[in-house]
Amino acid sequence: MNRQTVGTLYGIGVGPGDPELLTLKAYRLLRELSLVYVPVARPGAPSYARTIVEAYLDPSRQQIVELVFAMREDHERMAEQWRINARRIADELVAGRDVGFLTEGDPLLYSTFVHVVTVLTDICPDVAVIVVPGVSSVQAAAAAVRVPLADRDERLAILPATYECTGLQTALATFDTVVLLKVASVIDRVLDLLEEVGLIDHAVYVSRVGWPEERLVHDVRSLRGQKLDYFSLLIIRSKR
Amino acid sequence: MNRQTVGTLYGIGVGPGDPELLTLKAYRLLRELSLVYVPVARPGAPSYARTIVEAYLDPSRQQIVELVFAMREDHERMAEQWRINARRIADELVAGRDVGFLTEGDPLLYSTFVHVVTVLTDICPDVAVIVVPGVSSVQAAAAAVRVPLADRDERLAILPATYECTGLQTALATFDTVVLLKVASVIDRVLDLLEEVGLIDHAVYVSRVGWPEERLVHDVRSLRGQKLDYFSLLIIRSKR
Repeated sequence: MNRQTVGTLYGIGVGPGDPELLTLKAYRLLRELSLVYVPVARPGAPSYARTIVEAYLDPSRQQIVELVFAMREDHERMAEQWRINARRIADELVAGRDVGFLTEGDPLLYSTFVHVVTVLTDICPDVAVIVVPGVSSVQAAAAAVRVPLADRDERLAILPATYECTGLQTALATFDTVVLLKVASVIDRVLDLLEEVGLIDHAVYVSRVGWPEERLVHDVRSLRGQKLDYFSLLIIRSKR
Repeated sequence: MNRQTVGTLYGIGVGPGDPELLTLKAYRLLRELSLVYVPVARPGAPSYARTIVEAYLDPSRQQIVELVFAMREDHERMAEQWRINARRIADELVAGRDVGFLTEGDPLLYSTFVHVVTVLTDICPDVAVIVVPGVSSVQAAAAAVRVPLADRDERLAILPATYECTGLQTALATFDTVVLLKVASVIDRVLDLLEEVGLIDHAVYVSRVGWPEERLVHDVRSLRGQKLDYFSLLIIRSKR
C-alpha cells in the first residue's frame, strides 16, 4: 500500500461580488477541485461566496459543502462548532484529497478562513495551505466611486467604525485615506465626528459593491437616521 | 455624419506579478481592447505591468503603446510630460476609441493611473472612466507568507517606511497589522525601531511577490546591511 499524501487546502478569495472579479487562478481551482467548502452564518442561510461563483460550479461533478460558522455569544459552543468543521476538512485532507474553502473578498482580510486554518493546523499540523488572494470590497468600493486609496507617500488605514471616537479621530488625523468598515450600526455617530473634524465632504459611502443592491452615496449627510446594509463602508480621503 | 461618442478609459489592475492573479474582467478587457497603454519609468525601460500580461496580448491585432511616466526632480518638466501623455490618450478617446491603461496591482493603490485620470479629466472632462480593481502586492505578500492582514475588529495600516520614526511608532502601537512599503532604503533604521518596540519577531519580509525573484524572509534580522529589491515590504502583525 502506498503511503497516502496529505491533500492541500486552498483558501480561495472570490472577490467582493461581481463574478468577473474572480482571479484566473480562483476560477481554475474552482473548476479543478472536486470538493469545495462554503461558509454560511447559520444553517440554511445564503452563502455570499457561493452566490458569487454559482455559475462556475458544477454540482453534478463537484461536492459543494456548506459549513456553518456562527458568531455566537456562547464562545465555548462556537469554538466547538469550528473544531467540528475543521475536523471534517482535516479528514478529507488526510485521505489525500485537495479541497477548496471559499471566502468573499480576500482570504486574509476579515475572513473566516484565518480561523479555519488556525484550528485546522492544530488538528493536522502537516497540512499544506495555499492562499489565493482576491480583490477586496475596499478596492472594489474605491473603484466604483473612483477615489484613490493611496498615492505616492500616502498612508491608508482600514478599520471598523465601531471603534471609540478617539481611535477614529486619530486615524483620520494621521492617515491620508481612512476606510471605515461596519458603519451601518454607528452611522450617526460617525457622521457627527466627520462634521466635527471637517471631513464630512470628503467621505463617500458604498454598500454591497458589485451586487444588484449596490449603493453609492456622495452626499453622506443624507444617510443620517437611515437603516443601512450590513456591508457598508465609508472612504474618507482628506486630500481631494 | 453621426455625432462621435467619446470612448471609455479602462484603468486595469493586472495584479502583483503572477499572471494567474489577473481578474477575469481584466483578462477579458485585455483581449477586447484594440489599444492598450502601459507605463514605463523611462524610454526603453521594462514595463512590469506589460510583462505580467505579455501572454494575453496579441500585438498582431492590438496596439500596445508604452508611455513614459518619469519621476523627475524637475517637477515642471515631469508635469509637462504627463500632460503630453494625457493628451495622446485623450485624442484616442475623443475619436471614439475605448482604451486600456495597465497598472501593476490595483489602479487606486500607489499607481500612476490616479495621475493619468487627474490630468486627463482636466483636458477632457466628459471622458468615461472605469476602474477594474486588481489584487495588490500587499495581499499577495500576505498570502505568500500566510499572515492575516486583519481579523474581526482589527485595524490595518499601509504606509511607506520612509516616514519619520514617530509616525511609524504610532502606527505600530495603534494598528494590529502594519504593512511597511518601500523598506529597501531604510531597512536598518526600521529594524532598529522594531527591536526597540519589541516587534522584530512579528515582522515578515516579502519582495517581488509572484515574480521569479520572489523572496520571503521570516528572520528579518538577517536583512541588516543587505541591498534589497526596490519592491520590498514588511508585514508586522502585533498578534501572533
